[in-house]
Amino acid sequence: MYRNRIERAQQIMRERGVDALILGPGSDLLYLTGYNIHSSERLTALLVFAHADHRLYIPELEASRVTDPSLSLVIWKESESPTKLISKELAAQGVQTIAVGDQLWSIFLLTLQEDIKHVRWIPASTILAPMRLIKNAEEVEFMKRASKVADRVWERILTIDPRGLTERKMAQIVSDLLLEEGAEDIAFNIVASGPNSASPHHSPSSRTISEGDMVIFDYGGPLMGYNSDITRTLHVGRADEEELKVYKAVKEAQQLAFLAVKPGIPAREVDRAARDHLGSLGLDKFFIHRTGHGLGLDVHEPPYITPDSDLQLQEGMVFSIEPGVYIPGKFGVRIEDIVVVTQQGAERLNLATRELIEV
Amino acid sequence: MYRNRIERAQQIMRERGVDALILGPGSDLLYLTGYNIHSSERLTALLVFAHADHRLYIPELEASRVTDPSLSLVIWKESESPTKLISKELAAQGVQTIAVGDQLWSIFLLTLQEDIKHVRWIPASTILAPMRLIKNAEEVEFMKRASKVADRVWERILTIDPRGLTERKMAQIVSDLLLEEGAEDIAFNIVASGPNSASPHHSPSSRTISEGDMVIFDYGGPLMGYNSDITRTLHVGRADEEELKVYKAVKEAQQLAFLAVKPGIPAREVDRAARDHLGSLGLDKFFIHRTGHGLGLDVHEPPYITPDSDLQLQEGMVFSIEPGVYIPGKFGVRIEDIVVVTQQGAERLNLATRELIEV
Repeated sequence: MYRNRIERAQQIMRERGVDALILGPGSDLLYLTGYNIHSSERLTALLVFAHADHRLYIPELEASRVTDPSLSLVIWKESESPTKLISKELAAQGVQTIAVGDQLWSIFLLTLQEDIKHVRWIPASTILAPMRLIKNAEEVEFMKRASKVADRVWERILTIDPRGLTERKMAQIVSDLLLEEGAEDIAFNIVASGPNSASPHHSPSSRTISEGDMVIFDYGGPLMGYNSDITRTLHVGRADEEELKVYKAVKEAQQLAFLAVKPGIPAREVDRAARDHLGSLGLDKFFIHRTGHGLGLDVHEPPYITPDSDLQLQEGMVFSIEPGVYIPGKFGVRIEDIVVVTQQGAERLNLATRELIEV
Repeated sequence: MYRNRIERAQQIMRERGVDALILGPGSDLLYLTGYNIHSSERLTALLVFAHADHRLYIPELEASRVTDPSLSLVIWKESESPTKLISKELAAQGVQTIAVGDQLWSIFLLTLQEDIKHVRWIPASTILAPMRLIKNAEEVEFMKRASKVADRVWERILTIDPRGLTERKMAQIVSDLLLEEGAEDIAFNIVASGPNSASPHHSPSSRTISEGDMVIFDYGGPLMGYNSDITRTLHVGRADEEELKVYKAVKEAQQLAFLAVKPGIPAREVDRAARDHLGSLGLDKFFIHRTGHGLGLDVHEPPYITPDSDLQLQEGMVFSIEPGVYIPGKFGVRIEDIVVVTQQGAERLNLATRELIEV
């Protein structure tokens, strides 16, 4: 599988006149080799040539992590400079256009640019993003299973009385549940209560969850490397009229966006379905982010479901639909499912209830 | 405090002829502003000018995360391009030399380079690293407290019978203990058992910890943003002669490196103290990494304690001393403490026992 992917990347490189591709740690490297490692000051980098064999530059102390014997390694010692080794190789191959991983640290790019002048540097996403944009049946299956894990965690969260727990403690409980239910890792974990729920990317704090709070849970973690991502909002005790109204609006917007999905339409139409509905209720000014993002080996990846996106949806694309309404100083509501584009429309990968639960 | 740090950065910029500094998410941003956010495709960036006011570019949905009212914000909407806003500002200021955060994603640097031609791009570490290299009394105090958390976790690990637990389950237990003892987050968490302990950067796997295993624990997490980092190795059941010999050698090497630390010497002498001792026992070929790394807001930061480093140690530097011996296919041993350079020598921030515990 990895060999096929690398050959496909090489083919796209040749079509686009890209001579070399340098990928640091991260999802592109994982996609092409199966090798997973965090970014650090010790560079791990896959070097792919349009017309020559690829190889992985790896620090000596991490070489034993690589389990695929078919992956050709260049093991560098602590006293060596991996960028020097790479730029020497690039010069030897006489490359003119070099694609570098979008998430590669700038320090490595700057060091390479210092060594290799008069070449063109472009982002690797021009080659990798089109490949990763469409998930095959196996990838969709992994993501279904990852989403089921997230669903089961939500069911278990609903059995917990959150009163008196801090957001941070609650987040720890969610992390443990995710791992127990089968996630390989925690990708992210938001617990935002009361007024904090009006901050879409809130970090769990020492605030104690209390009667009357809206609480947003947004969490996910990988299975076979592929991530889940779910958001649900619950209410501690009985919700008041305004809270019920906002919740209903968000739930409807989420459903309308889901119904809008089908192959062939531009991504912006999905965004519009959610945004227009919230607009009709005077709530669109509180919807301060896009409707969704692609999901896969990365938690955020193309396609992005924004008001301006012309990207045409295709069968096998996987993304979130997650409208939200955030009323500053008061509360927020967000509901998010992952969906896959099917032949006729879309299928939800998350099936946990989207009803407002008052715990 | 943050205002002082930014003024100091501006002063260094003026001394070195740097006109602008762009910092993405990460430790440099945290150091200069107190603002902590993960990297993502939505750019958050601090723009510091040598001769003008600084400002933070931030996506609208994250603006409410910023709690410091003195931090001047440029809030960009989902439909805007933050790099376009930044390059317009850089052009308006007529900058010639721009420093970019070492860990900024290459995609942002490439986009900026596309917009702004004929300027010099350099790594931000030329400005920030010298500032962060020496910890003040308050920073050392935070790191002492973070290290005490790590020590208490080790004491609690020793009360657990690891037989029958997978590495991954054991790592989850360690994470929970870290949070319970007061860490704000998990920075990293290695549990490497049996032959896996011969891989210094092993990822916790589904391997079951069993009688006769060496098990390396290497974990840490921040307190007030400042990280801990400790490694201890235990044995399940009675260790054999070779294991005892290797353990003793590593423990001695760690102590000799610790005793070598004092202000004014080059970092390589600390490395040499550990490496020479292992060499005298024929074990240096199994010591496949540097002796240590600086610690602070990042888990790895300068100073690096390598065989080649000429960097002169100074009072207030904080780094790890962590020699290890890794015998492929058999087992590994690593012992790591964090130390701070004092007026006469060094002080250990970790005080957990370094004796071999047979559980």
